[in-house]
Amino acid sequence: MSSETKLFIIKIGGNVIDNEESLRSFLHSLAGLKEKFILIHGGGKVATEISKGLGIEAQMVDGRRITDAETLKIVTMVYGGLINKKVVSRLQALGTNAIGLTGADANIILADQRPVKNGIDYGFVGDVKRVNGEILASLLTAGLQPVIAPLSHDGQGNILNTNADTIASTIAVAMSEHFETHLVYCFELKGVLSDINDKESVISRIDPVRYDALKADGVIAKGMIPKMDNSFDAIQAGVKSVIICHAEDISDIINTGASKGTRLNA
Amino acid sequence: MSSETKLFIIKIGGNVIDNEESLRSFLHSLAGLKEKFILIHGGGKVATEISKGLGIEAQMVDGRRITDAETLKIVTMVYGGLINKKVVSRLQALGTNAIGLTGADANIILADQRPVKNGIDYGFVGDVKRVNGEILASLLTAGLQPVIAPLSHDGQGNILNTNADTIASTIAVAMSEHFETHLVYCFELKGVLSDINDKESVISRIDPVRYDALKADGVIAKGMIPKMDNSFDAIQAGVKSVIICHAEDISDIINTGASKGTRLNA
Repeated sequence: MSSETKLFIIKIGGNVIDNEESLRSFLHSLAGLKEKFILIHGGGKVATEISKGLGIEAQMVDGRRITDAETLKIVTMVYGGLINKKVVSRLQALGTNAIGLTGADANIILADQRPVKNGIDYGFVGDVKRVNGEILASLLTAGLQPVIAPLSHDGQGNILNTNADTIASTIAVAMSEHFETHLVYCFELKGVLSDINDKESVISRIDPVRYDALKADGVIAKGMIPKMDNSFDAIQAGVKSVIICHAEDISDIINTGASKGTRLNA
Repeated sequence: MSSETKLFIIKIGGNVIDNEESLRSFLHSLAGLKEKFILIHGGGKVATEISKGLGIEAQMVDGRRITDAETLKIVTMVYGGLINKKVVSRLQALGTNAIGLTGADANIILADQRPVKNGIDYGFVGDVKRVNGEILASLLTAGLQPVIAPLSHDGQGNILNTNADTIASTIAVAMSEHFETHLVYCFELKGVLSDINDKESVISRIDPVRYDALKADGVIAKGMIPKMDNSFDAIQAGVKSVIICHAEDISDIINTGASKGTRLNA
């Protein structure tokens, strides 16, 4: 496979998964893409609802779920089973030959269990150690479109709950050895905004110089900085561009090259 | 891939899944096999326990679960998520490059939803229509060992709950075009018994002539007949042999050719 073949690593969050209309529309766009892709999906509210139903209370620290043994079972079931197979079966119905995977499958995402830090034990949470790009490349070459749940494994028999954004960026870096790889973060806004009160004020391009200026001006603020830093790290490591956009714009951006969303590049 | 390469399609039931010690020992045997294999696993008690926890009562007719929309969610989570990923991550830890799949993944098992029959609506239950042997063969050739949950899909966006024995036999038939395929049913006995009260009275070989004699003598009785009929149908359709044995004997049978279990052949 030539490294000039384009590949899009697309991450969607729980907001798309949770809303039937958004999901339907997004999967339709995805099935109509003219380029190869790998989809990484987040979790959504279903895991929390099922935990509640079973009387397991979700523990959160800094917006992250603490994954004890019971919660690990829930996320393995919900992310790896319910959501992953829903997305796969519906993409199949749209003519896209999707294959659903967790990081344990074909050993695609090996991780270390996160060590206790500042007194916080995140439990069965994984920090990605290695992505097996060869296997993903061979699945893509065979005409399959991987759909990946936010779960990795430790190589010792344990599934680990793993941040979907991180999975997306580490997969993008690994795939950039095989394809011209673009990383697309879909979220609930149209892109990075120059004015947080104006949802149409999308900044269309950001390079490292512009990024420094936007940070200095306080336009790009606290919560967004780690996401942007990770994106520029991915670009530094070989990813051609990172696009931050609304899920409903992926078809225009990828198929027709429309300048929607925010594009980060070197 | 030469059709002289051996492939074992191995089906294990809930009795192995439910018992930690049996599962550990079985996965150890599996990881030590010298031949290629595809594992099909059943469900086990976990689905029933989780249904109960969520206040969903399992409905059974003739030993088969009636799969309403809520039950479908449970089996998709438990079979496709919890059990499948447990088996995969543990095989990975043992050095076996397992990849977990449902029938929706890579479109490997297409099914029709079972029509209402004799007034019984089984709900979201699938009758297998087509197995995609090409994809499974290419995964095997790439060094991957598929681990398949008892779920198919209808090609219209729905997952369907599907009998694991049937999945195993239809996969075996499809794979016999690509490999010298043997179908192995693991169960709680050492094989087909000539005396139901003597667990050591294993009949080592049964061909169609012997089968007719055993049926005429009443040695092979009611419950066993459909299983045996399906097995001989699979042999008729290209499967080299069907082995009915205890899960703990697979290593001896496959690696050293020990005459344990019952072997059915043409």
